Amino acid sequence: MSAADYPLALNTGTTPTLDLRTACEATAAAGLTHIGPWRHLLDGAGGADAAAKIIAESGLKASTLCRGGFLTAAEPSAQAAALESNRAAIVEAATLGTDSLIMVVGGLPAAAHVLGGDGDRTDKDIAAARHRVADRLAELVPFAQEHGVKLVLEPLHPMYAVDRAVLSTLGQALDLAAPHPTDAVAVVVDTFHVFWDPAVLEQIARAGREGRIASYQVCDFNLPIAQDALKSRGMMGDGYVDFASLSAAVAQAGYTGPVEVEIFNEEINAQDAALTLETMKQRYTDLVLPHLA
Amino acid sequence: MSAADYPLALNTGTTPTLDLRTACEATAAAGLTHIGPWRHLLDGAGGADAAAKIIAESGLKASTLCRGGFLTAAEPSAQAAALESNRAAIVEAATLGTDSLIMVVGGLPAAAHVLGGDGDRTDKDIAAARHRVADRLAELVPFAQEHGVKLVLEPLHPMYAVDRAVLSTLGQALDLAAPHPTDAVAVVVDTFHVFWDPAVLEQIARAGREGRIASYQVCDFNLPIAQDALKSRGMMGDGYVDFASLSAAVAQAGYTGPVEVEIFNEEINAQDAALTLETMKQRYTDLVLPHLA
Repeated sequence: MSAADYPLALNTGTTPTLDLRTACEATAAAGLTHIGPWRHLLDGAGGADAAAKIIAESGLKASTLCRGGFLTAAEPSAQAAALESNRAAIVEAATLGTDSLIMVVGGLPAAAHVLGGDGDRTDKDIAAARHRVADRLAELVPFAQEHGVKLVLEPLHPMYAVDRAVLSTLGQALDLAAPHPTDAVAVVVDTFHVFWDPAVLEQIARAGREGRIASYQVCDFNLPIAQDALKSRGMMGDGYVDFASLSAAVAQAGYTGPVEVEIFNEEINAQDAALTLETMKQRYTDLVLPHLA
Repeated sequence: MSAADYPLALNTGTTPTLDLRTACEATAAAGLTHIGPWRHLLDGAGGADAAAKIIAESGLKASTLCRGGFLTAAEPSAQAAALESNRAAIVEAATLGTDSLIMVVGGLPAAAHVLGGDGDRTDKDIAAARHRVADRLAELVPFAQEHGVKLVLEPLHPMYAVDRAVLSTLGQALDLAAPHPTDAVAVVVDTFHVFWDPAVLEQIARAGREGRIASYQVCDFNLPIAQDALKSRGMMGDGYVDFASLSAAVAQAGYTGPVEVEIFNEEINAQDAALTLETMKQRYTDLVLPHLA
């Protein structure tokens, strides 16, 4: 491990009240070098070019762009719209200078209304939804390669299989990536989403062998599950994730890139960003970094 | 399929306000032939012998007994207590005349306090907890065999991996069962817990080939996740489970036994049991049974 390995990165989902410039300034002030913005912050900053300038002026690099995906629609018009949105996200990632576009693949058409979308409320065929993800991914790969951007598949915790991602395990993500070049499709290991998986350590090793790990995201799994289940993510150390075994496996698999902290949590999201960043740094130093070394 | 195949069964978790006699009477009145009681109803009835008499007098058979398990403790005294409790449950199952003791294997010691128990709040090593489950299971197998009772492993949805069951997939349950005879260790397929699993259809087929399916439990997966996450289970048809593919796979795997409905859901649990039973029967006839035939 060199001194430049495993830089800590703020994912802006952790500080949702900040605009891009404020988030960048807070990140730089905390001594961090990387930030992973969500797309809506680019819009707020006046577009990807302006956002790239803000990030550079803060002395930061973009670790990832969150997020593309939502590829499960069965309707041709909705499929076309999803492809268009993802192509725009690919261009934005390239403009920011990151090669990693995080992909949340989408849930069942039957549950589309949960996120405010359309969809056939009777379509509960999860296997068919997974096939459509594979089809849309194949359609996006050439465009992603042209722009030097990887589609970074994020397996989500199975509690989100219905409404957010029919991609539920790292093994499934690697199977989905397998037909495509490693510079076009990769995976992110997010501790919250994968810690429970009995196969997680062997699949992290496989992801390393297959050259597919594009990002490592850390946060904890809290109990009880929050009323908005998405907000059950916690600061490292506050929940039940064993960061030692997962981090050691990620390091052993050869990953040396940024480690992003992405926490959706009502209390943390509302508190002062400087406090969040200080706590993040301390917990990262205490609980994660020793196992990456 | 013969006329006696796939009898519908009430799991008493669906009607938690009823004592055993009332639950049996309601079940028989609805024309059902099987009931799956929880252990605390046996205590309320004056013990397993008295409970067996109540079930028989109602003209019913016990489909399963819920539940044994909670085998993850690291402390020797807690391990001894767990073995003692499970031996008592095995005897109770045999007394009721069912060969199926459903096993919820328990969560992390770090989360034991969530269910009111003791445990080392720093012990988040899920792999070690899984090893202890395997060890305790091996210790229980001879006693279970002597009593003609199967330890029926229930993989729980990964959202309960921390507090209720480190056993999260059907494949993992079958691996855990593999060293033991099929008359001692089996699995239950519960639609709520397994529908999201990308490997579920192949693992149901494997469970059939390996002679391990002891029970099929059906209920739906509702959104949003309930404030008490345990109560996110729904009446078939109200949520997002595709009962067609799962039921067809269970039938193809050779299972012909009772189909239990176990629903923890605030609204359903509070409503009149006769209404619940009528709805259950209708939904079973419409959504499940056609795919078992």
